[in-house]
Amino acid sequence: MTPRASSEPTPKGRGRRPGGVDTRAAIVSSARKSFAAKGYDKSSLRGIARDAGVDPALVHHYFDGKAALFAETMAVPVNPAELIEHVLDGGREGLGRRLVETFLTVWEPPERREALVALVRSAMTSDEAARMLREFLGREVFGRLAASAGAEDAQLRGALAASQMIGVVIARYVVRVPGLVDASRDELVDRLGPVLQGYLVDGSVAPE
Amino acid sequence: MTPRASSEPTPKGRGRRPGGVDTRAAIVSSARKSFAAKGYDKSSLRGIARDAGVDPALVHHYFDGKAALFAETMAVPVNPAELIEHVLDGGREGLGRRLVETFLTVWEPPERREALVALVRSAMTSDEAARMLREFLGREVFGRLAASAGAEDAQLRGALAASQMIGVVIARYVVRVPGLVDASRDELVDRLGPVLQGYLVDGSVAPE
Repeated sequence: MTPRASSEPTPKGRGRRPGGVDTRAAIVSSARKSFAAKGYDKSSLRGIARDAGVDPALVHHYFDGKAALFAETMAVPVNPAELIEHVLDGGREGLGRRLVETFLTVWEPPERREALVALVRSAMTSDEAARMLREFLGREVFGRLAASAGAEDAQLRGALAASQMIGVVIARYVVRVPGLVDASRDELVDRLGPVLQGYLVDGSVAPE
Repeated sequence: MTPRASSEPTPKGRGRRPGGVDTRAAIVSSARKSFAAKGYDKSSLRGIARDAGVDPALVHHYFDGKAALFAETMAVPVNPAELIEHVLDGGREGLGRRLVETFLTVWEPPERREALVALVRSAMTSDEAARMLREFLGREVFGRLAASAGAEDAQLRGALAASQMIGVVIARYVVRVPGLVDASRDELVDRLGPVLQGYLVDGSVAPE
């Protein structure tokens, strides 16, 4: 979402900041501080708006929810919540393949890949970033995927799926393990899709 | 392997350094520089000995091969080559489960886990460390596992296995994803074993 200066709602409340690019940047800056200080779960859009000195309605105007705002602070140019909707929309059948395909398609463009690598790197070296990524993945991505499967062991299932996708990103884009760097997207969908399907949906350990 | 001052071979050649703890430390220091500068594949025990000013026989005396010396420079308190032997010894059947079980058992003690986390972190942030880890894993760990399966697509198979194990380490020990932190070793062997078996040995995409 890009700033639309002409159609902005009028700031209410304290309303110290006028709408526009500065407002948006102030929200992102405030969000970044909040996520780093409190983690993803405990950060609220209301608190972020207050710290930025803007009306909460402006946060909703610029960002499609907390996940989208988080992605922006991480310089991740996609809204993960939308992607997960897309993956879930097709139902349980083929969910693993859709997840891998969507994931790899989104990260194919080099500039996006750089953002992803930067995110992963910071999560490796900073406890705050690790906490943010952990809470974010649990809440918005793998937690939702696993919950949709309705299994009792949804948390472990989501974590296993997360571990494989984190591992693929790192092996393919950071450590650059030869076999994975060379593999085509379709090949990876063929190989990883059934594994993700097993982690999230099927699997012998699932409840009756 | 610990230094055995009493049974040391006499240094030959230039032999500028006497045997003992200093010699061992000089070899490790020289190895660390070589791995960082040239990577794992292009570092030779002979070159490392020369740079340390010791006879190559001393390197073989202190270290059970390049993999063991690499593990030492990375402060990893296990010889990966020995572990892989153990995993391979049982044959193709159950290889995935043995790999996961061996891996998790080795990393269970907290002080070892710290070494592993440090290794992974440096591989994320330093191109040299990433290269070392990539070459090392390919040569000594997942390359050997996949080659033992005899498949034509051994490189991709090994890389997929590496991606899952890297991902588990990161999700369990670095990012600390809840479901994986809480899971018991046996539970993870049950869940991950068949996946690793599929990547390395079975799998519908394997050649006839």
